[in-house]
Amino acid sequence: MRIDIVTCQPELLTSPFAVSIVKRAQEKGLAEIHLHDLRRYAINKHGQIDDYVFGGGAGMVLRVEPIAACFDELLAQRAYDAVIYMTPDGETLRQPLVNRLSLAGNLLILCGHYKGVDERIRQAYITHEISVGDYVLSGGELGAAILVDAVVRLLPGVLGNEESALSDSFQDNLLAPPVYTRPAEWRGLAVPDILLSGNTPKIDVWRHEQALARTEQRRPDLLQE
Amino acid sequence: MRIDIVTCQPELLTSPFAVSIVKRAQEKGLAEIHLHDLRRYAINKHGQIDDYVFGGGAGMVLRVEPIAACFDELLAQRAYDAVIYMTPDGETLRQPLVNRLSLAGNLLILCGHYKGVDERIRQAYITHEISVGDYVLSGGELGAAILVDAVVRLLPGVLGNEESALSDSFQDNLLAPPVYTRPAEWRGLAVPDILLSGNTPKIDVWRHEQALARTEQRRPDLLQE
Repeated sequence: MRIDIVTCQPELLTSPFAVSIVKRAQEKGLAEIHLHDLRRYAINKHGQIDDYVFGGGAGMVLRVEPIAACFDELLAQRAYDAVIYMTPDGETLRQPLVNRLSLAGNLLILCGHYKGVDERIRQAYITHEISVGDYVLSGGELGAAILVDAVVRLLPGVLGNEESALSDSFQDNLLAPPVYTRPAEWRGLAVPDILLSGNTPKIDVWRHEQALARTEQRRPDLLQE
Repeated sequence: MRIDIVTCQPELLTSPFAVSIVKRAQEKGLAEIHLHDLRRYAINKHGQIDDYVFGGGAGMVLRVEPIAACFDELLAQRAYDAVIYMTPDGETLRQPLVNRLSLAGNLLILCGHYKGVDERIRQAYITHEISVGDYVLSGGELGAAILVDAVVRLLPGVLGNEESALSDSFQDNLLAPPVYTRPAEWRGLAVPDILLSGNTPKIDVWRHEQALARTEQRRPDLLQE
């Protein structure tokens, strides 16, 4: 999978992509991530990429020309399965969408900043608008980092143990059951006996009950889908 | 505001906190962010902080001792308004929760990793469990970065223009209206005339209508709250 990210703050994204899962995926040749600095496509020598909002009001808007120039260059080189704009008014990212995007070959991601991008960029280029949640961030970069992490960890061969992703929360509309590790007792708090029993079938039942109970208590909405 | 983040991957968080809004907030003395490396509290010389999951199955679990040692040290130094665990089965982060947390003096955030943390840490220390969305990430670090960005940008004096945060999506249960900037025409796509009219009251009405229409189309659930 190849992921191109267009941003006015590429330096924000260096460390999230240089460690952990995403680093490993790149080292194994399973994912390629390219950051494109919008300022390289500025409209003048001052590096201008944004401008005041038409109609008045606070906040700056990313102009069309720098984004269009960068997009045109990338789109001339390859086809993209999705041209994604990270924005709070996009489709809310949930695991099924992550699963679908993990099947793509090439993804192009645009990060908003300030008050967002000129609406005409959305009309002209964007195929998917995605929000990582109902809150406002200072830019789309962290949303892009989230999307990349969530997608890349699903690529075959990235996780050390394939099984691990399948037992995650949300993959079956259930939250994960509680987990415990050594020591068996800590400050008077003991691990549930069942987990020490070695009885795998009973442990599986217990875990499913726990997952169901936790989902009923915390996220009953997941059970209604 | 002081934010302490406990993580086994502090290096993942360096660049998000070194640029943009969060950098500015720190430079202005409005926010202090401290990263604490769990490996400094490892249970042995090999730097061990995790262990196999009791009951069998894939994935590693963060052990209680390193987290407890780090927490005990921090909690002895100051009171925290919230001890937060970033986890997909937590309360879903939404703007009202961000707004509430922005009023805190001290926040302590624990990032999960691998299969999560031993349940007993959650019982013994955690006051708030927060999820940034219904998807699974390789760790809680990006969730913590999101929480910090969302909260810090609301601190008075952080944004260049206070007004800017109030007109964001979600602050009034409406998505933001479309925004445009120069040039007024680009590749045959024109900015709506109303925005060039200079008639501020009419522009305000248009924006509200657009925000309402976009919310009805994309997120009717927001209007039912």
